[in-house]
Amino acid sequence: MQTESGLTIITVPFSRDDAEQLDAEDPLRRLSDAFDLSGGVIYLDGNSLGPPPKQALARLQHTAADEWGRDLIRSWNAAGWFDMPKTCGAKIARLIGAPAEDVIVSDSVSINIFKLAAALHKRNGGAIAVYENEFPTDGYILQGLAALTDAELRRPNPADNSLTDDIGVLLVSAVDYRTAAVADIATMEAQAANAGVSIIWDLSHATGLLPLDLAGDGARYAVGCGYKYLNGGPGAPAFLYARGDGAALDQPLTGWMGHADPFAFDAAYRPAEDARRFACGTPPILSLSALDAALDIFDDVDLNDVAAKAQRLGDLFLSRALAAGLRTVSPLPGERRGGHVSLRFGHGYEVIQALIARGVIGDFRAPDLMRFGFSPLFLSYADVWAAADALIDLLKTEDWRRPEFTRRGKVT
Amino acid sequence: MQTESGLTIITVPFSRDDAEQLDAEDPLRRLSDAFDLSGGVIYLDGNSLGPPPKQALARLQHTAADEWGRDLIRSWNAAGWFDMPKTCGAKIARLIGAPAEDVIVSDSVSINIFKLAAALHKRNGGAIAVYENEFPTDGYILQGLAALTDAELRRPNPADNSLTDDIGVLLVSAVDYRTAAVADIATMEAQAANAGVSIIWDLSHATGLLPLDLAGDGARYAVGCGYKYLNGGPGAPAFLYARGDGAALDQPLTGWMGHADPFAFDAAYRPAEDARRFACGTPPILSLSALDAALDIFDDVDLNDVAAKAQRLGDLFLSRALAAGLRTVSPLPGERRGGHVSLRFGHGYEVIQALIARGVIGDFRAPDLMRFGFSPLFLSYADVWAAADALIDLLKTEDWRRPEFTRRGKVT
Repeated sequence: MQTESGLTIITVPFSRDDAEQLDAEDPLRRLSDAFDLSGGVIYLDGNSLGPPPKQALARLQHTAADEWGRDLIRSWNAAGWFDMPKTCGAKIARLIGAPAEDVIVSDSVSINIFKLAAALHKRNGGAIAVYENEFPTDGYILQGLAALTDAELRRPNPADNSLTDDIGVLLVSAVDYRTAAVADIATMEAQAANAGVSIIWDLSHATGLLPLDLAGDGARYAVGCGYKYLNGGPGAPAFLYARGDGAALDQPLTGWMGHADPFAFDAAYRPAEDARRFACGTPPILSLSALDAALDIFDDVDLNDVAAKAQRLGDLFLSRALAAGLRTVSPLPGERRGGHVSLRFGHGYEVIQALIARGVIGDFRAPDLMRFGFSPLFLSYADVWAAADALIDLLKTEDWRRPEFTRRGKVT
Repeated sequence: MQTESGLTIITVPFSRDDAEQLDAEDPLRRLSDAFDLSGGVIYLDGNSLGPPPKQALARLQHTAADEWGRDLIRSWNAAGWFDMPKTCGAKIARLIGAPAEDVIVSDSVSINIFKLAAALHKRNGGAIAVYENEFPTDGYILQGLAALTDAELRRPNPADNSLTDDIGVLLVSAVDYRTAAVADIATMEAQAANAGVSIIWDLSHATGLLPLDLAGDGARYAVGCGYKYLNGGPGAPAFLYARGDGAALDQPLTGWMGHADPFAFDAAYRPAEDARRFACGTPPILSLSALDAALDIFDDVDLNDVAAKAQRLGDLFLSRALAAGLRTVSPLPGERRGGHVSLRFGHGYEVIQALIARGVIGDFRAPDLMRFGFSPLFLSYADVWAAADALIDLLKTEDWRRPEFTRRGKVT
């Protein structure tokens, strides 16, 4: 929909034809060729595990057969394995608005949170804090750090002011893993600077989706995930950003890859002068290689296009779900939102199973959230229209009550 | 060589014909078909990066294309990804003489040392210690832990008695990364039990090579590497063993995969009751999958055969090197040794480069060690005979003095 002045307010299509029209005008449409989603599913879980870009599969094959198999140990230098935590980090830096030398790919989000939180707590003192509704592992890791160092751990409600000067470190998600609410990084950093609080941003649900400008917004520390919107593969290595003065932080996971001169085999640890000091042990090269290739998709992608399409896809789905009587915990259509939408439904588990049986893949988050992700690189408006059709039909027919969809076993 | 009583003393061949005879009698000979080392090199660096078993390459291809690409998020359950840290750990447990439920595959050796050392230090108190000549990362990690927790860090000489009751945790390699000297696990554990010291064994250069019996020897805590003799791929995930009472240890890297109920999304961390409490973040499935398939090679392998062949291959190489005037820091021919041999030579870097140019791949460890590994699964006696020929010829001709072999750039 356009106003008379030409300003787009909410561009939610009213029909399948409208959706196809939006697809025809979509600047990202060409990217769907980069993926092979020929399995006949509509994949609304790219926010949990991005699908493989074809170039990531090809690169993995090359890394395995040629680099590992043929060139063997020589690939640490010849194929750039040793430098990949930094070269891959530089590719991510571009997506989050950070200097290339301040980002490194290493370990998992959990481990990287530990590194930054421990280093910042040692420097800043004060309490360590994480909002009570953050992604569980974020809180768990700070709980582990607090138990080890006798730090005070706080779990404030995000509605309360937690940027007070008795807090040393606060961990915040840029996009909430349940609601997809988007934090205002610049505003929070300004408040944090006044209070002397160091914020660690968890960018897991933001990277590769929103046009981030960490350096411009004054953000100094962040971690993020490689396997959601970056499509780097299951359990792909995570990244860590520490701006400039990060090179003065002492993180405790001091493995040999973070040493200033890893091949000197010095008895004493001496950290590298740049972000490499946040590296630890030998990285999983096969997984890292797939991520590295997947990142190249973003070479000629404007993240403003990606964010705008995610917003529209979510608005489309959410408008239809709300019209069908469902409730949401996510920002409403037209309100700023990340790449997913969560609907609250008591039998959400069963509905998600029934949708999967119909070829529409979303996920369930306990206790009652049905979560649908709208990765703009490979989804079309027509896909999301059809997914909404399937959901609405399921609710109408109550097919989700069939016994094969009841809760049993594990849920991812 | 055999004595008249039939007892083998040192079975070092005296000629290439003898080597070929040993190959003909080798019970492990059939395993070389499991690897594709058609690149024409003699690979004496399997102790640093094992080559890919064909089945690992095939599995990786399947995991990437079918599990990640076709089945997408569903593979966390359907393909067993979620349980793989434990199922893969059970395969390693068999190789180290540990109960299946006490081993988990997770993160890197460095990170796993941190988990165990932090947990044991918290429980035991006292100083944390690592021998001064241990693999660097082992000492670095304890240095990081000591800085974070204000623990006392000691770096004793292995000749001194370090099993005294003021030590809480001691980290020891089962096979020395430079010399390949083999520690006496049972004897050290008996002494440690008297002094109340917890030993963490670093099995990186032992697993898949020596017939370990950790439980039988009284060893309770260990870590090890997936990419050396296990051939799991570059930077393959590492493993951690914590026997029985490990389930009472609180390790600080409390990521969601170690939670008793990871999908409950509880706000508070509650560790799993078994070794899974030593898991942390989401594991790198592509790398983990290659390791998991590589481990299946050991299904019908007797590690006594493997250790015996490694000893003989090393004895063969070392005997010829010593006869050519080289010096060693490793146990002499006939003395118990792990899978590699280190020769001391001032121009070791250049000699290793010159050998690589001749298709014999070993590695160099600063300041002056030429290290040659003898992975028994894919090397023949004839290979090692030919490698010794190349080394001896290089030393005689001094071809290593050519300018292209001088030190420049990085060394792996």
